[in-house]
Amino acid sequence: MTKSLKTVQLSHGGGGKEMDQLIKSVFFEAFNNPILCSEEDAAKLHLSGPVAFTTDSFTVAPLFFAGGNIGKLAIAGTVNDLAMMAAQPEYLSCSFIIEEGFAIDDLVTIVNSMAAELHQSGARIVCGDTKVVPKGCADGLFINTTGIGRIIYPDVSANNIVAGDAIIVSRDIGRHGATILMAREGLALESELTSDCATLWPIVEQLIAANIPIHAMRDATRGGLSAVLNEWAKASNIGIDVNESAIPVADEVKGLCELFGFEPFDLANEGTFIIALPQAIAQGAIEVMQRYGHCQQAAIIGHATSAHSGKVVLTTPWGSHRYLDLPQGELLPRIC
Amino acid sequence: MTKSLKTVQLSHGGGGKEMDQLIKSVFFEAFNNPILCSEEDAAKLHLSGPVAFTTDSFTVAPLFFAGGNIGKLAIAGTVNDLAMMAAQPEYLSCSFIIEEGFAIDDLVTIVNSMAAELHQSGARIVCGDTKVVPKGCADGLFINTTGIGRIIYPDVSANNIVAGDAIIVSRDIGRHGATILMAREGLALESELTSDCATLWPIVEQLIAANIPIHAMRDATRGGLSAVLNEWAKASNIGIDVNESAIPVADEVKGLCELFGFEPFDLANEGTFIIALPQAIAQGAIEVMQRYGHCQQAAIIGHATSAHSGKVVLTTPWGSHRYLDLPQGELLPRIC
Repeated sequence: MTKSLKTVQLSHGGGGKEMDQLIKSVFFEAFNNPILCSEEDAAKLHLSGPVAFTTDSFTVAPLFFAGGNIGKLAIAGTVNDLAMMAAQPEYLSCSFIIEEGFAIDDLVTIVNSMAAELHQSGARIVCGDTKVVPKGCADGLFINTTGIGRIIYPDVSANNIVAGDAIIVSRDIGRHGATILMAREGLALESELTSDCATLWPIVEQLIAANIPIHAMRDATRGGLSAVLNEWAKASNIGIDVNESAIPVADEVKGLCELFGFEPFDLANEGTFIIALPQAIAQGAIEVMQRYGHCQQAAIIGHATSAHSGKVVLTTPWGSHRYLDLPQGELLPRIC
Repeated sequence: MTKSLKTVQLSHGGGGKEMDQLIKSVFFEAFNNPILCSEEDAAKLHLSGPVAFTTDSFTVAPLFFAGGNIGKLAIAGTVNDLAMMAAQPEYLSCSFIIEEGFAIDDLVTIVNSMAAELHQSGARIVCGDTKVVPKGCADGLFINTTGIGRIIYPDVSANNIVAGDAIIVSRDIGRHGATILMAREGLALESELTSDCATLWPIVEQLIAANIPIHAMRDATRGGLSAVLNEWAKASNIGIDVNESAIPVADEVKGLCELFGFEPFDLANEGTFIIALPQAIAQGAIEVMQRYGHCQQAAIIGHATSAHSGKVVLTTPWGSHRYLDLPQGELLPRIC
């Protein structure tokens, strides 16, 4: 009945018959599991030991972009925040704010992308919420996902980096930001650039299985590489030296940055992560990462140092040095 | 620095310096606790045993209403979903979607209301997210809260109601829906009606401490009393008989319903709950509930029956019977 309608109506958020139908025909259909479908106000879970808990609301525009859509992003984003704590993603909640008139077909496409992306980590959506707001009160669709994961390697922390640690980036940076920028500027058709949007748990699981002693791990989302490195330098009270030539950046991303005056270090990523670990094990870690297609460019880009504590220093290709600061100003709104 | 600005800017959601300042000066200030302020991508928690997990996005309009605001609602709403599973509310995540230009003063007021409401249950906000969308892409402010609670009485379920159980309502119904309706129609100044918005955990905790054998428990939010009773009748495969004269409804709510053609049974509540439990213990449960100011009108409104399974039958004050159905149609959008 709901699927025969073309668009979402206010009544789909009213708590009555129509909402019940939307939930069962669209959400339960895609995310089907016994915990979700139990008809209670909350999911009952059995947990023990240390867990990680994280939340993200997704407001990306446009909703569909090269390499993904808001649904894929909403799953990968929250699962990655768990993975970065070395936590196996297990349970997610999912809450939709839908603008009246939103196409049901698009909603189904997005929800199916979410279901597909969940298979990358084995996490399940176990509770949810649906709100519909009148036309003009939201821009299409916003999704919140909140996740719980079981921490399987407890020592990963932004505070754990020590002088001498190698800093590794998992792949070329800035793709998600550049892809969204392109889509907004109407340049997408001329390009093969896609977002890096991806679930990182399978790689992290392999790193842990290989006994790699990870000190810190973070996906470089909003604020990009710059934000992660600056937060780490402050949290661990160390300096970080980065070699610009060693940072992989796709030519198309470089070109867009030149055109629009951005730095690739500041652009958002949605499937790219940074690791700090002992120098001696760095090459081994890179070998594990490179088994995954999207990590073939994994590279050591710098190291932690006891000098210039709290600061990130970039060595340019011409040998000069400058501080790489926390990004400032508007950057790209609604990137995720 | 952020507090000296009057409104939220796009840069406050950019993942850089300004966002860091907003988070620290507004959110950390109000919700201050060591887990939240740990600078990681996710909160680390230690959990064991059965827990409840629930999510809600809040889009209420207007943001401020008699008896509360979106912040109080966002805490009470999620804490109540946990309480209704007999779970002690422990950890909440909190995610803000803010429209560019939103007044910082209003944001601080709302966040302080959230902090105050958290004290009612002892729950803590341990992780969060902030997004800012351009003017016109959201209506002021949306908040998602997702909660984890430790289940301390495991046998509460919509499936557990048996024929003969008494059905109790904790107070007069329909206040939240009627309050929002009034505010939208510009009638608020002429009235003393306030929303029932409240944290229910302290009452639930006392019921459990008093060894009341609760079969089912649910707060009557969107869809009101009608939605809860219909869901229960289906989930437990029983009939429910309700006596209309026994249901407490404030005169002002009755008046508004007559004026606008609503039924008090369909109106949303945000601090009113329904319990199903053995008839023999019903009076004892009511005595526990009535110790709380807002439950002074707690009353037995009906009972479960093996007749008309899956259906709710209302006996009117004139002795006639009719089905009380799941609400249908638009009702009031953006009620929560």
